[in-house]
Amino acid sequence: MAEGMQAIFDYIDAHREEFIERLRTLCKQPSVAAQSLGMQETAEMVVSSINALGLGHADLLPTGGGFPVVYARLEGNGPRILNFYNHYDVQPAEPLDLWQSDPWGAEIRDGKLYARGVADNKGNTIARICALEAMKAVRGSLPCTVQFFVEGEEEIGSVHLHHFVEEYAHLIPADGCIWEFGGKDASERLTMSLGLRGICYVEMRCTGANTDLHSSVANGVVNPAWRLVWALATIKAPDGHVLIPGFYDEVLPPPPEAVIALEEMPNNEQAFLRRVGLTHYLDNLTGVPLRVRDRFQPSCTISGFLSGYTGPGSKTVLPSQAMCKVDMRLAPGMTPEKTYERLCRHLKDHGFDDIEVELLGPEMPSMSPIDSEIVKAVVETANEVYGQEPVIDPISPGSGPSYLLCDKFSIPMAGAGVGYSQSNAHAPNENIRIEDYIQGIKHIALILDRFGAGA
Amino acid sequence: MAEGMQAIFDYIDAHREEFIERLRTLCKQPSVAAQSLGMQETAEMVVSSINALGLGHADLLPTGGGFPVVYARLEGNGPRILNFYNHYDVQPAEPLDLWQSDPWGAEIRDGKLYARGVADNKGNTIARICALEAMKAVRGSLPCTVQFFVEGEEEIGSVHLHHFVEEYAHLIPADGCIWEFGGKDASERLTMSLGLRGICYVEMRCTGANTDLHSSVANGVVNPAWRLVWALATIKAPDGHVLIPGFYDEVLPPPPEAVIALEEMPNNEQAFLRRVGLTHYLDNLTGVPLRVRDRFQPSCTISGFLSGYTGPGSKTVLPSQAMCKVDMRLAPGMTPEKTYERLCRHLKDHGFDDIEVELLGPEMPSMSPIDSEIVKAVVETANEVYGQEPVIDPISPGSGPSYLLCDKFSIPMAGAGVGYSQSNAHAPNENIRIEDYIQGIKHIALILDRFGAGA
Repeated sequence: MAEGMQAIFDYIDAHREEFIERLRTLCKQPSVAAQSLGMQETAEMVVSSINALGLGHADLLPTGGGFPVVYARLEGNGPRILNFYNHYDVQPAEPLDLWQSDPWGAEIRDGKLYARGVADNKGNTIARICALEAMKAVRGSLPCTVQFFVEGEEEIGSVHLHHFVEEYAHLIPADGCIWEFGGKDASERLTMSLGLRGICYVEMRCTGANTDLHSSVANGVVNPAWRLVWALATIKAPDGHVLIPGFYDEVLPPPPEAVIALEEMPNNEQAFLRRVGLTHYLDNLTGVPLRVRDRFQPSCTISGFLSGYTGPGSKTVLPSQAMCKVDMRLAPGMTPEKTYERLCRHLKDHGFDDIEVELLGPEMPSMSPIDSEIVKAVVETANEVYGQEPVIDPISPGSGPSYLLCDKFSIPMAGAGVGYSQSNAHAPNENIRIEDYIQGIKHIALILDRFGAGA
Repeated sequence: MAEGMQAIFDYIDAHREEFIERLRTLCKQPSVAAQSLGMQETAEMVVSSINALGLGHADLLPTGGGFPVVYARLEGNGPRILNFYNHYDVQPAEPLDLWQSDPWGAEIRDGKLYARGVADNKGNTIARICALEAMKAVRGSLPCTVQFFVEGEEEIGSVHLHHFVEEYAHLIPADGCIWEFGGKDASERLTMSLGLRGICYVEMRCTGANTDLHSSVANGVVNPAWRLVWALATIKAPDGHVLIPGFYDEVLPPPPEAVIALEEMPNNEQAFLRRVGLTHYLDNLTGVPLRVRDRFQPSCTISGFLSGYTGPGSKTVLPSQAMCKVDMRLAPGMTPEKTYERLCRHLKDHGFDDIEVELLGPEMPSMSPIDSEIVKAVVETANEVYGQEPVIDPISPGSGPSYLLCDKFSIPMAGAGVGYSQSNAHAPNENIRIEDYIQGIKHIALILDRFGAGA
């Protein structure tokens, strides 16, 4: 370990309670973008925390109508620039009755901190700030320049981030980016992602009569629920194959090094299946083929469907409206624009002109090289901090704006974070373990040291 | 007109305000079976109103766990027995914000009485009681025996009525039955139905994981919304044809006299289409073929569908549950039991063992002969009271328990009632016109006189 790192780790241990309190303070501040709850206050708290470092000035940069991005450039000694991508917005806390403590209470129980957003993404945001504080306190300066991009709309699809990226393109270039998340898997190994699938999320709507009607007239009057069902059935076959012409055309095969990484991933399948109450994956897939399909193949998911009467018992109604949400994850090579166009054309070709398709929150797939300097720095230092080899996930099955902030500027990225397999991100009783948080602060400090030392 | 009828009509005119108040009193008493709201109170009010006639005793007869049936037998002079079928339960008043006055306020505006249930079915119930009062007052007795069967569960599918019919089968036989409803169409002609389609209403449910999951795992985890969509698409084709094997096997062709009646029905199609904001019926059907399809063909309607996230914007969720309601109207010849069995077998044969199908409120189709004594009495007297030929609808496209109370006992039936084309039954601002109500009372009195005179 580089000279002085032990002093930095000691500083982190000595300020442990302060660092926990700092995170609790941010967690007690609600910041739900979907509900416009506490967004400005939270952004300003993040700005203050960065400014308190005394390493440079943080700003709130506008995003063309959306919640602002917290941006800071903290000059370092070395020539490299390292970007941190985080977000200060969190998921809604609902359903509240399933929480064992106030989602905005930041209660600590059994060594865990419970709060909405503590795993996704406030824990990681504050851990990074604390790591910089420790480095400044011990060494007086940073080994490389660090930039923060902490956005406020990640949980609603980063809807305005492309405006920001266009407007402030000159600020973004860097030598590497630490992506927002990462954490320990069921076998306690740190997992880091080097990319994300894209997404094309649409809402489909159909309207029949101008009012719900008695279902006795159903033989003569169009039923929008049937229209959507028939349309959906032309989109994906019961065997899982998507039937939209050209849907798979641009899907790239997984690079050989990605397949090797997938082969080296631990098998946590049984633990997952047990947890969610299932006996097998679709098509009885398992191992590497399952991992490949989850990452290098697109998906097409009905995320919601609503029409007519859905209360208890029978109501003999012919609905006037039907709506469904379809979530298409995009594998590397695909684009949300082409996918959306193909879906619309397919519906038209099948006579579904009466179905309106609204595109919500498109995101490009992204994939970082596995042999970049930032990946090397994260992997090596993870070994040192956690005492075992991290798991490299070449691309997360989820989605996020990493194309916009990384691929678009050829900035290689890697994830790092303080979550674990039961963090319940997006779910009730979201939590992180205090020890993971402290280790995570040390990991970030060590990454900075190692990456900053390079040229 | 028979001797004394003018005196009866005069009595009705003289007691007009009293008869309106009697109806308002019943309408002010909520009686929503689906919400168990005021059911016992309402049943007792109906019992009191019948007992007040001084013609016989009304009872509340149990239905094996459901709301009781108001039963009364009022002995008359002649040998014939005439049954009245009505119901004291009404639809829920919701959505309340679309009402222009309190649904339980029974407000009179512009010659109309507004109240939930006034058209369906309290107006008809009280009109029949008032007609008997007038007859008793003028003549001292009834020309034939009259029985009331006023149930409390019509709006929830008459779920316990078959218990009642088994237990009290000895009470039911009669020479004719006046069914619960009837009213004036858009051209102000009285429409009377001589039967009803049956119904097989099911709720289909499918479960995947034990909790909603992040949709990034969708390529490996079963999606109950897709399962239901695929299952539904095997049930009915986009051309409207139901694909369940044997579904249409027992459908009877319309009897020639029914076709003649359908040919004689006025064409109100354009008025209906304009009102509901549509330009045409499915398959551009019109006239007699449309009327035949609405009555002598079954239907298969998605009445509701719910799964996953249905709020604004995007939520990337893989639902753990999906539910839909399917309303199948049964043409004469079909039975709900066979239809249900065929649906279940069809789903099994297509590999949908994971879909649970619950049968809710089955009802048999029913069809009364067009040349019965009761139909003759209703038609002739309608001519006299309303001054024009009534419209005979050989079978209503809707459903109800007429098989149980009529066909099963070979009792011919005909509808008669005080509704009109804008009564808004089941909808906000339900209303009847006061003049229709008064005319309806006279019509019932005249039917009784005419039918009772026969042997």
